[in-house]
Amino acid sequence: MAQSKVAVIGLGSMGFGVASSLLRAGLTVYGFDINPAAEARFREAGGAAGSADEVAGSLDAVVTVVLNAPQTADVLFGANGLAPKLRKGATVMSCATVSPDFAREMEAKCAAIGLHYLDAPISGGPKRAAKGELSVMASGTAEAFAGLKPVLDGMASNVFDMGDKAGPGSAMKAVNQLLVGTHIAVTAEALTFGISQGIDPARFYEIITKSAGTSWALEDRAPHIINADYSPASQVNIWPKDLGIVQDIARSAKFSAPISSAALQMFLAAQGMGLGHEDDAAVAKVYAALSGVKLPEGDA
Amino acid sequence: MAQSKVAVIGLGSMGFGVASSLLRAGLTVYGFDINPAAEARFREAGGAAGSADEVAGSLDAVVTVVLNAPQTADVLFGANGLAPKLRKGATVMSCATVSPDFAREMEAKCAAIGLHYLDAPISGGPKRAAKGELSVMASGTAEAFAGLKPVLDGMASNVFDMGDKAGPGSAMKAVNQLLVGTHIAVTAEALTFGISQGIDPARFYEIITKSAGTSWALEDRAPHIINADYSPASQVNIWPKDLGIVQDIARSAKFSAPISSAALQMFLAAQGMGLGHEDDAAVAKVYAALSGVKLPEGDA
Repeated sequence: MAQSKVAVIGLGSMGFGVASSLLRAGLTVYGFDINPAAEARFREAGGAAGSADEVAGSLDAVVTVVLNAPQTADVLFGANGLAPKLRKGATVMSCATVSPDFAREMEAKCAAIGLHYLDAPISGGPKRAAKGELSVMASGTAEAFAGLKPVLDGMASNVFDMGDKAGPGSAMKAVNQLLVGTHIAVTAEALTFGISQGIDPARFYEIITKSAGTSWALEDRAPHIINADYSPASQVNIWPKDLGIVQDIARSAKFSAPISSAALQMFLAAQGMGLGHEDDAAVAKVYAALSGVKLPEGDA
Repeated sequence: MAQSKVAVIGLGSMGFGVASSLLRAGLTVYGFDINPAAEARFREAGGAAGSADEVAGSLDAVVTVVLNAPQTADVLFGANGLAPKLRKGATVMSCATVSPDFAREMEAKCAAIGLHYLDAPISGGPKRAAKGELSVMASGTAEAFAGLKPVLDGMASNVFDMGDKAGPGSAMKAVNQLLVGTHIAVTAEALTFGISQGIDPARFYEIITKSAGTSWALEDRAPHIINADYSPASQVNIWPKDLGIVQDIARSAKFSAPISSAALQMFLAAQGMGLGHEDDAAVAKVYAALSGVKLPEGDA
């Protein structure tokens, strides 16, 4: 195998799944996280032992599965950044949702020290991460794709090749997030609007999923509202971040995006109501608070 | 058969399909339209002969497939309205997208003169109308449903029974239109945003339809933009009307619906640009005009 030693940086709900999938694929995988408990849990699951400083020089690839651009920049090029410690020719794969400009900046900084870089945001959620069935919207040089082939094979069921330089991978992810975030918020808008008109939420789901109004996000998230289950599969906090990135990119491009901008406001309001760590379907609670509509209540 | 003679009022793209489906189902169908050419075309297709005044007293049911509430009120209770000419016990089925309040008003006016009324907005588009495969979101008395059974069997593949009085049928349709209209406009927002970031529209379609960002409306309408085909399957003009109804209902209910409100603005802008009679996917031209993005051009 061309590649055997990989470090996954960030062992949250997505990163732990990615790292575990790579273990199953037969790679030697080091897992690093700011939370020592997450690192210990991954070693128990088969992760290789050794500190980042000890193993950096022997790694074929580093996969960053952190929250955002600042964390990505920090783990790669911060005070104790990993990138300068890697051997020349190693490959960095960045999975966070970031702006295309940031991806281009990271690619250039990596290239300057002899590293390949893949702009590779991921999509699919924690369950598919754990199964090695993510979608990756990836762009980078042929060397970056080649160096990461065992990693991509192990963690993804769909790899969308967006071209030979960083930027388009992140742009495509932003486009997807624009849609998903708006669809989640408008699902909440429609469901609570329906309640205001006497439409039973379960009946809403039954009918809309058979009608032209349906979306992947509605079919996935509306049951959370109907069952009053706001345990976080994907947190409210994701959306001010990701729709914020969309709006940042749009503003740079002088592109007016009023519908996703309205959706962003609803997720900001959900954060403002203290719902940031709940499931993103909790954006329905904003509509309920603003209308007096009563949402379904759980059994608990 | 309990019912044999039916009049369909409005022979546009939806009404002609409904009337033709009822003919195929073996009913005697009279087709009426303000456009004499449409009436003549329907008679050539097998429609029964006779003026509305001549046949009104013998009808078992009237199905109104007109544009909106004012047209519905006019054909039923206007200066030459049909409702007062019907025999007692006949049934009226109203298919336009209207407000629940309007539906309740029509039901009461019908009941006052001995007619049954079904609040029965339809969904599915002209192609499914022609095949007798519409979805109907219907509410009304058991007598109204029973009187229309042969009609519903002939024109619809899904009849969603929303309850025993007028209102919920129209409410459910409004909920569906809130979602469809918003999804069409945000499809245009995402696709043009993607173009601004160098994402090829065909690639956008290929990837998003396999990703969490997909919706029924995106899968149906994005190809119109990609192929630069704005021949109207469903016109831009539909949406200021239907999202306007949504906003009217929402305002009455003191329900703030900011995302669908933003979508409504984009369709209003499309009308303002003179695109009202184009396919509703032409809302993408608003985004293009506001951003300098170049949309795909047709071969023509």
